[in-house]
Amino acid sequence: MNYDQIFDQAIDRLHSEGRYRVFIEILRNKGSYPDARCFAGHNGPKPITVWCSNDYLAMGQHPKVVEAMEEALHNVGAGSGGTRNIGGNTHYHIQLEQELADLHGKEGALLFTSGYVSNDATLSTLAKLLPGCVIFSDELNHASMIAGIRNSGCEKRVWRHNDVAHLEELLAAEDPDVPKLIAFESVYSMDADVAPIHAICDLADKYNALTYIDEVHAVGMYGARGGGISERDAAAGRIDIIEGTLGKAFGVMGGYIAADQKIIDVIRSYAPGFIFTTSLSPVLVAGVLASVRHLKSSSEEREKQQASAATLKRMMREAGLPVLDSTTHIVPLMVGDPVKAKRISDILLAEYGAYVQPINYPTVPRGKERLRFTPGPAHTDAMMRELTDALVEIWDRLEMRLAA
Amino acid sequence: MNYDQIFDQAIDRLHSEGRYRVFIEILRNKGSYPDARCFAGHNGPKPITVWCSNDYLAMGQHPKVVEAMEEALHNVGAGSGGTRNIGGNTHYHIQLEQELADLHGKEGALLFTSGYVSNDATLSTLAKLLPGCVIFSDELNHASMIAGIRNSGCEKRVWRHNDVAHLEELLAAEDPDVPKLIAFESVYSMDADVAPIHAICDLADKYNALTYIDEVHAVGMYGARGGGISERDAAAGRIDIIEGTLGKAFGVMGGYIAADQKIIDVIRSYAPGFIFTTSLSPVLVAGVLASVRHLKSSSEEREKQQASAATLKRMMREAGLPVLDSTTHIVPLMVGDPVKAKRISDILLAEYGAYVQPINYPTVPRGKERLRFTPGPAHTDAMMRELTDALVEIWDRLEMRLAA
Ligand SMILES: Cc1ncc(COP(=O)(O)O)c(C=O)c1O
Ligand SMILES: Cc1ncc(COP(=O)(O)O)c(C=O)c1O
Repeated sequence: MNYDQIFDQAIDRLHSEGRYRVFIEILRNKGSYPDARCFAGHNGPKPITVWCSNDYLAMGQHPKVVEAMEEALHNVGAGSGGTRNIGGNTHYHIQLEQELADLHGKEGALLFTSGYVSNDATLSTLAKLLPGCVIFSDELNHASMIAGIRNSGCEKRVWRHNDVAHLEELLAAEDPDVPKLIAFESVYSMDADVAPIHAICDLADKYNALTYIDEVHAVGMYGARGGGISERDAAAGRIDIIEGTLGKAFGVMGGYIAADQKIIDVIRSYAPGFIFTTSLSPVLVAGVLASVRHLKSSSEEREKQQASAATLKRMMREAGLPVLDSTTHIVPLMVGDPVKAKRISDILLAEYGAYVQPINYPTVPRGKERLRFTPGPAHTDAMMRELTDALVEIWDRLEMRLAA
Repeated sequence: MNYDQIFDQAIDRLHSEGRYRVFIEILRNKGSYPDARCFAGHNGPKPITVWCSNDYLAMGQHPKVVEAMEEALHNVGAGSGGTRNIGGNTHYHIQLEQELADLHGKEGALLFTSGYVSNDATLSTLAKLLPGCVIFSDELNHASMIAGIRNSGCEKRVWRHNDVAHLEELLAAEDPDVPKLIAFESVYSMDADVAPIHAICDLADKYNALTYIDEVHAVGMYGARGGGISERDAAAGRIDIIEGTLGKAFGVMGGYIAADQKIIDVIRSYAPGFIFTTSLSPVLVAGVLASVRHLKSSSEEREKQQASAATLKRMMREAGLPVLDSTTHIVPLMVGDPVKAKRISDILLAEYGAYVQPINYPTVPRGKERLRFTPGPAHTDAMMRELTDALVEIWDRLEMRLAA
């Protein structure tokens, strides 16, 4: 048994498929984000513009958020020092859970250390508590939902992406008396499309299934108060469990679910991923509290961000670049080859100071490699014009086809 | 299928076993910790002393840590805004990984959002990469290791706690050509005892097994630079993977592994729990960086903490209280009944302003319920005397037996 050899082979596989990852080392410039510094390892940090952040609304540098974190830091210190049950349950945690429950019109909410953990812990625990449960999962569900479903040990049925007819076929084929859970996302972050929530809930009603929605890319971004697509579409009341992150539009870090008190109590009491871990730092929780409260009453950031996304999509389309025709705040530019995607990204960074990460397998299927742009409220029209011109130049240089 | 009924039954089971958990809501007082405020829901916050924090050395309020976090907050903002691969790889992350690799004398280190996630992600991924791997797990291993082992889908052999003869028996019974991984902790936080690292590594050598140690309760606490029991016992070089948390002695939040570059690269590239999640907030990372650096050169906090623990154990023993005879910094006081453990804890909080959480099943086996005290460098002898006197009074009141 030669362990080194096995590890070497695992790494070699990545190199040979052109998908060995090199992390770009950066520091954002608070106050003038999307400006940042890139540490390429050579001559000290180089100024860049970030085009691929999930801090969609730049709330991570909002004065209210920064101030709230500073205050908490000086009030209670850096960490919580314990699990939620043993010393780590601060007043901030309770307040934020109330705020998030209110955001989604639910009785309760529960914090986790990340959105990943909230999906993994909730799905695996919920399904284990329902004897014989069958989980219906959209084929493009995020890795963290897939992990939770696998770790539940339940039967899984995968339905074609956003295809409610296929979902119904699968539901109808199941024993009516068996517990069922339908798990899906609202905004799919790689294709930038949106789930038909009401149609899915109609099926859940018809076949008596629980519904679980991942609103990670939608909370803070959609709905009058930032409650996500389920708020925008007036569907939150029809969903049993709404899951979200605190690390994207809210700009900080952490994850949560919102649901009936009964479900919250069950997950709180049974999920190892919730119970046996140090709770979120109160500093983070205080920052999120300020962020959620701000975005409940201010739509300015959302509107500016939507305008930026629309402008960039228009510029790219007009230039003949193969931008996906999306209805959301994400701008996917299709490349279809992992090596080219990486090459374009490298040129953008080295020659134009524009940072956008190539998205390769396994994040997207092979052949669907792309660049994924997330312009925010602070990306100006001039910046977007410059970026589009750069892309056209690179497309030309690499002899790739532009639309007429 | 009545979902509500199933959830009700799940909660009723907890009530009937006396282990339904009510979280105590607190805020620590930075600068005068272990003082804190408790929100009992009645007349505003009440002053208490915390006796059960895992911020063992009070680093969560160390001026260097607080200052570093404040600086990072103003330098780069609240969150990282992305996964490590997509925009969330900051200069702080790289620096901290180098610092942690150095702490353990390893080639590399890898950050996770928590110690729980580091165990779950690493164990499940590592074992999946080794075809036919058998994992040997100490019977008292933490829930997060158990999760990782279960999620790997590998065969598991459980050895009796710290019993190397039993471990050898199980190793010897296995096919020599099959990959093997021995997973254990250094300091077991509930029984406060320590693993025989060298003896375990001898067996790993003999049977060609990889070794994985959870030093969550030991990093920052043992060894001349805070490298844990593996540093203290000069055994770090013999362990393949050292895992730790940033949320206990280091006072902040997060988790990590340290290992050969090859292993780090494999986990970095293959573990969904590392790849598909927003990276640790740079604010937290900056705080940990200051904490690790401080504890590398200062032993004062460790020494004071050990002195406090020794004093409290002595006082309790002299008073006839059933304190476990431990060699570590944790002070377990055995009760052996979940309802009594909760009752003692309730009286301490309500009448004496002393907060210590009862530890019940499933954190410890049934019949082994206890109170777990973690006096820190800032708990004075007078506080410990007062606490001991209170416990004697309560033992008396509840007609429990004191030793002669
Ligand atoms: C759809 C989706 N769900 C969950 C997550 C995980 O959330 P977090 O980053 O808070 O762990 C992500 C991305 O990170 C995601 O894209
Ligand atoms: C032995 C052990 N390992 C791992 C963990 C998880 O670490 P973290 O709190 O950073 O998630 C804990 C406790 O929380 C623990 O006691």
